[in-house]
Amino acid sequence: MYDDLKKDCWEQNLRLAKTGLVIQTFGNVSCADRERGVMAIKPSGVAYDTMRPEDIVCVRLDDGEVVEGRLRPSCDTPTHLVLYRAFPCIGGLVHTHSVYATSWAQAAKPVPLYGTTHADHLAADIPCTDFMPTERVNGDYEVETGRQIVDCFRRQGLDAAEIPMVLVAGHGPFAWGKTAAQAVDHAEVLEMLCRMALLTREINPAAPRLRDDLIRRHYERKHGAGRTYGQKED
Amino acid sequence: MYDDLKKDCWEQNLRLAKTGLVIQTFGNVSCADRERGVMAIKPSGVAYDTMRPEDIVCVRLDDGEVVEGRLRPSCDTPTHLVLYRAFPCIGGLVHTHSVYATSWAQAAKPVPLYGTTHADHLAADIPCTDFMPTERVNGDYEVETGRQIVDCFRRQGLDAAEIPMVLVAGHGPFAWGKTAAQAVDHAEVLEMLCRMALLTREINPAAPRLRDDLIRRHYERKHGAGRTYGQKED
Amino acid sequence: MYDDLKKDCWEQNLRLAKTGLVIQTFGNVSCADRERGVMAIKPSGVAYDTMRPEDIVCVRLDDGEVVEGRLRPSCDTPTHLVLYRAFPCIGGLVHTHSVYATSWAQAAKPVPLYGTTHADHLAADIPCTDFMPTERVNGDYEVETGRQIVDCFRRQGLDAAEIPMVLVAGHGPFAWGKTAAQAVDHAEVLEMLCRMALLTREINPAAPRLRDDLIRRHYERKHGAGRTYGQKED
Amino acid sequence: MYDDLKKDCWEQNLRLAKTGLVIQTFGNVSCADRERGVMAIKPSGVAYDTMRPEDIVCVRLDDGEVVEGRLRPSCDTPTHLVLYRAFPCIGGLVHTHSVYATSWAQAAKPVPLYGTTHADHLAADIPCTDFMPTERVNGDYEVETGRQIVDCFRRQGLDAAEIPMVLVAGHGPFAWGKTAAQAVDHAEVLEMLCRMALLTREINPAAPRLRDDLIRRHYERKHGAGRTYGQKED
Repeated sequence: MYDDLKKDCWEQNLRLAKTGLVIQTFGNVSCADRERGVMAIKPSGVAYDTMRPEDIVCVRLDDGEVVEGRLRPSCDTPTHLVLYRAFPCIGGLVHTHSVYATSWAQAAKPVPLYGTTHADHLAADIPCTDFMPTERVNGDYEVETGRQIVDCFRRQGLDAAEIPMVLVAGHGPFAWGKTAAQAVDHAEVLEMLCRMALLTREINPAAPRLRDDLIRRHYERKHGAGRTYGQKED
Repeated sequence: MYDDLKKDCWEQNLRLAKTGLVIQTFGNVSCADRERGVMAIKPSGVAYDTMRPEDIVCVRLDDGEVVEGRLRPSCDTPTHLVLYRAFPCIGGLVHTHSVYATSWAQAAKPVPLYGTTHADHLAADIPCTDFMPTERVNGDYEVETGRQIVDCFRRQGLDAAEIPMVLVAGHGPFAWGKTAAQAVDHAEVLEMLCRMALLTREINPAAPRLRDDLIRRHYERKHGAGRTYGQKED
Repeated sequence: MYDDLKKDCWEQNLRLAKTGLVIQTFGNVSCADRERGVMAIKPSGVAYDTMRPEDIVCVRLDDGEVVEGRLRPSCDTPTHLVLYRAFPCIGGLVHTHSVYATSWAQAAKPVPLYGTTHADHLAADIPCTDFMPTERVNGDYEVETGRQIVDCFRRQGLDAAEIPMVLVAGHGPFAWGKTAAQAVDHAEVLEMLCRMALLTREINPAAPRLRDDLIRRHYERKHGAGRTYGQKED
Repeated sequence: MYDDLKKDCWEQNLRLAKTGLVIQTFGNVSCADRERGVMAIKPSGVAYDTMRPEDIVCVRLDDGEVVEGRLRPSCDTPTHLVLYRAFPCIGGLVHTHSVYATSWAQAAKPVPLYGTTHADHLAADIPCTDFMPTERVNGDYEVETGRQIVDCFRRQGLDAAEIPMVLVAGHGPFAWGKTAAQAVDHAEVLEMLCRMALLTREINPAAPRLRDDLIRRHYERKHGAGRTYGQKED
């Protein structure tokens, strides 16, 4: 029933593996079909190089019930569900433990916007959640991981359509987009931004945050109404 | 006689080479057949890309005698034997000089538990042995290397079934598991944890150790009685 | 009409992708045919691995009109045009967001000449422009990016024939050469010099700039009248 | 006449390119036939991926005359000749601008012996020459580069048979061995030791130099009369 969705999910999981952001069975990509109320996600603990499209698991967005697939879905499935419900603009989601993004998450610091590569993708620092409090850790942990992210966005007044990535303190990155392909792109960009922010500070500990007019110029060039980047049909 | 054991050992040595953790003839993987009291190990000084399954050497776990193979076993063989004898839970062992793990070993520092990637694999800092004292260095050196590790675990009250990796001060890392495949996985994870711990501290010199409840939550999710990670048959 | 120019441009864009300096649709290579007053450039927002020679766009050097190609040219096209007009010695141009060069650009620092690898390619620090002032950002942004570079070279009395690379503060690197192939070589060397300069300072914060006589010796060996590097026909 | 020597030289140049230590036309490998008084070396400015065995150039060890080959030999040829003459134990030589070794050379610092990976290959810090004085720079530069190395070894009482690598201040590394294959191995190990020494100090600025008895133990295990590493026929 969900063959196309599963194939898209499988292809983007393989593409994630090719980027070098994940090793072994780490990480996962999901993609949603909003009309049918279903998302497809990587099975838990399965290696990328042996995974087949039929291994992908489909679960309902509203109650998380498995509707297709014989394997267990990623144990991060409840986190994905919380995010799909809170952020209706999302069509694809990626979780990794990529080295630089995870190190910023472990350092529990938002990533400063130092340059136009960053501003081409988002016009704000990359947010980092608070550490999850003990009562939440001891509750429904994977659901609470999603809630940490949603709370972080609400408190800081951030729009998930404009900020397609986040760090979970002590844990690692999540990235999303309109499609799973875009989510994988954002996960790759996030890793690069985290690496460059650290290097920038090592070269110049007093490196300035990019000026607001430069940030807006670059962001609008790619995302504004009169955007000039890419082809007209994009 | 030990064709299956040698093939497993050969395959995992090749897989180690593919991870990029070793160059030239560095490093070695062994795997044990506890019922037959034998382990298979990489031959000494042989390059990964020309090694054949028949080059693997089998030695008895109790007295270290070669029981199959025409080449000399890895000169680290006595270290492997000490560890197989002291830690009955081990079925496979890996030694590398991988860059980040070796650098932490040379720095003679345990690796702090900064995040959930670490807690997914062990619920403690990655231990580092003391420097071997001169009288041990001048004794049976490779045996003593194993003893440094065993002493470190005994003194710190660590369980090799729960802590599948260690750094030998001034030398480099050893990792193990129930199987050689799992030992190679752990060697790869160890390198990644060592790299991320250094980066975490460079981003935030005051980065906190992960809170105990978060550590337990992640460790139990993958290793506890009610674990939810992976497929039921895993 | 411009099949050869488009093929050269396409090949050098693919070669750039192979160096690892660019991901996704980042970066672009152009090459100029001065006699026909035309340059060929990567189309905007197209991925390297699916790009075909016929996707390359040709624009006139004087007024920027598209003369061949059905796609939109890179949105950095106006920057390339400014540079081709200001620097008549240039036959090829590369823009990337490569990690180390972009980090130095974000740090807004020229790259000190620490060694002979650097002196083999240019006899000065790698220049870094000022941050673009707000009125320029709000003007014709891509044209102004080119002007920042040209101003930087004029003010510092630099010759684009001798300094084939520059960092734009807060943005990233541009590199050029007599041909697009040489421009790609320079982009790759620039990344390596940026990486080594940072490492040099990390190893020895007091590392000295290379002495002038050593700089001249190496630069002349490759670029002087009596150069001894390479083959006679080069 | 020297087909075998040229083939060996060509193969080791290709192997060097595969290690990732060189880009474009950087670096060179030579190998010597002491009985015939000839060395084979990479041609100057030729890219690794298009080089053929017949492009390799043979020059006489005593006077540097080209005896076979239609291309110009590497412009570093006089440096190789000085080293072959001063160090009769050498059968192969490698020069690169590999990133970490060149950064230590630019920092003009010897590389401290921090661990057993280092001691497996040499029982001393990796030496770094002085900066070449101006009168030598303005003399026969490539010959003087070789003399800087020879002087460094003489003054410090080092034996080229035991220390198969060196850094030339402000320039980069040279490595050698009994054969060209061993020289390439040493160039790769040198890069790894330089990387790990920097990381070790970043993890622990007070990291101790390895104790002498540990150094000797590891060095003798691989190079001593009673060595136990490798196969008997090695």
